[in-house]
Amino acid sequence: MNMMQTNWIPAIPKPNEEARQAAFDHQNQLTKPQGSLGVLEHLSMQLAAITGQLVPNIDKRAVIVMAGDHGVCAEGVSAFPAEVTPQMVMNFVHGGAAVNVLARQAGADVYCVDIGVNADLDHPNLLSRKVKRGTANMAKEAAMSRQEAEAAVRVGIEVAEQLVGEGYRLIATGEMGIGNTTASSAMLCAFTGLAPEETVGRGTGIGDELWKHKCDVVRQALHVNAPDPNDALDVLAKVGGLEIGGLVGVIIGAAKHGVPVVIDGFISSVAALAAVRLVPEARPYLISSHLSEERGHLAVLREMELQPVLHLNMRLGEGTGAVLAFPLIDAACSIMREMATFAQAGVSGKEE
Amino acid sequence: MNMMQTNWIPAIPKPNEEARQAAFDHQNQLTKPQGSLGVLEHLSMQLAAITGQLVPNIDKRAVIVMAGDHGVCAEGVSAFPAEVTPQMVMNFVHGGAAVNVLARQAGADVYCVDIGVNADLDHPNLLSRKVKRGTANMAKEAAMSRQEAEAAVRVGIEVAEQLVGEGYRLIATGEMGIGNTTASSAMLCAFTGLAPEETVGRGTGIGDELWKHKCDVVRQALHVNAPDPNDALDVLAKVGGLEIGGLVGVIIGAAKHGVPVVIDGFISSVAALAAVRLVPEARPYLISSHLSEERGHLAVLREMELQPVLHLNMRLGEGTGAVLAFPLIDAACSIMREMATFAQAGVSGKEE
Repeated sequence: MNMMQTNWIPAIPKPNEEARQAAFDHQNQLTKPQGSLGVLEHLSMQLAAITGQLVPNIDKRAVIVMAGDHGVCAEGVSAFPAEVTPQMVMNFVHGGAAVNVLARQAGADVYCVDIGVNADLDHPNLLSRKVKRGTANMAKEAAMSRQEAEAAVRVGIEVAEQLVGEGYRLIATGEMGIGNTTASSAMLCAFTGLAPEETVGRGTGIGDELWKHKCDVVRQALHVNAPDPNDALDVLAKVGGLEIGGLVGVIIGAAKHGVPVVIDGFISSVAALAAVRLVPEARPYLISSHLSEERGHLAVLREMELQPVLHLNMRLGEGTGAVLAFPLIDAACSIMREMATFAQAGVSGKEE
Repeated sequence: MNMMQTNWIPAIPKPNEEARQAAFDHQNQLTKPQGSLGVLEHLSMQLAAITGQLVPNIDKRAVIVMAGDHGVCAEGVSAFPAEVTPQMVMNFVHGGAAVNVLARQAGADVYCVDIGVNADLDHPNLLSRKVKRGTANMAKEAAMSRQEAEAAVRVGIEVAEQLVGEGYRLIATGEMGIGNTTASSAMLCAFTGLAPEETVGRGTGIGDELWKHKCDVVRQALHVNAPDPNDALDVLAKVGGLEIGGLVGVIIGAAKHGVPVVIDGFISSVAALAAVRLVPEARPYLISSHLSEERGHLAVLREMELQPVLHLNMRLGEGTGAVLAFPLIDAACSIMREMATFAQAGVSGKEE
């Protein structure tokens, strides 16, 4: 990759290994068999390494829902019409969508960003950062220019930095965009060499015939555009999406400031993969949430060695799975903050 | 089974199928693809069927931690000494254990029940319902008499009914008892015919040699006692535990009153299997929480067709995994209560 083209990407600090070790040592003093809290123990160590604190204050948290449209919808790849994207954006800003409900319960604020919706939208609760009114049809041409892809990533970085500046210390990724599982599948194929049949899923709920067609559309998009697997921005531009680019930026922007990022489902995970391909140093800041029903999800998580903890058979996106993982992250912090040690509780240790 | 011996077991009402259907119909009006919230949708339907209400009030919730000792510890099957059982009971009543921390976060009260600890314990926060000071060594004789097993189940029913009487509407199962993974493995073998090597796990963290020994102890206990797989009380008495019997009763008592029960890990799940074998009508009231690291856990869940939602590699017991699932149950209720419908939000439906 040409460094001249990516010098706008910020450096990401290394995790604090001393803090990680201190968290590990503390976990081993708590009244439980070593390692018996499994992922909660790993989360507490990861959070310590990210933040440098044994019990980080992550009370102020947000889910960023990037919204954009997809020219590839012209190929008839979705069960829902493209007009649903702006309609759902208005649902988000009015607080009625699933992610709003679940974010409220998790104590998280929802920030919806119009980064590429193909409609004129205006609302006090909407962050208007439109790069373009939807992508072009990737089955016929590049979804975006390289400059547009870069602009989308920059929007994400700026939004993340703005929220970190306002005190947010835990960020989840979410998205809305009819057609964006098609783009995500194409990106995953480009990055990994997997066949469309291994990465294309049912999206919002298509049948067998439409699924085969969706695979063909992905294959055609890859053939027409020939994205360079070693150039994440090229992949994003040619077969990606504006909201996916925005999430790439959110991840990089949060990581730059030592803020952990909880990754939602398939589309968010593909954005995370693009972010890690662009800046490998972002990887330690990622927390996996749920395993979605979408066919390619496990493959993209494995590519990053991320282990999903929630198995809820969900396939909604919006950040719904990510905010459902917030209580587990809180649990990891509570264990570090409140649990008694063997010495405090007068409990005998393991027999040697 | 001889009905004369089980006429003390209460009848359990059938779930409300109209309420389940009404929950299904409402879910299909919400602004998301049908079924896209996966397990959350199924939970909302199950809760409606159990309680008869579309949005049940489950704010008052508890985790019941049954504690008992195991004579089989004399065979050297655990990594921790038996004295840890009473020590941990005191940790529970002082609020310092993992389950206390996680229950506080989930808004749940912890009720610790001494149903069979091999020590004299007294504390205002402890429910003293001791049936016996620990079981006998099942490798040499029956762990309990049939009367003792019945008494343990009755204690559980009474505790559950007491809590339901106090207004609790969501109950999680928890347990403490050094040696109780050995008893649970033996029960699972008895119920299913699985070999000890398929049901015996690492417990609190034993090595390879001790694991083989633990398998042999289970095999010997089954050989010595020959429990009748078609008589759940016989299995419980001969190779079970007092706290396991208590949890069998908790499940039956809660189900009797239309209160859902969240099942923790391996030991709780074996108790649930015994409850379902004793009273099949209890099954619809069970909610699975996490998949533990314990080897036999998936097998016992499959036996009941329960699907765990949290994959956290935990192996602690106490009810820790069960209370971690409470926010997911809350999420299912919040979705039903707060989410906008397609009509309310002006969002287009699926294209036909």
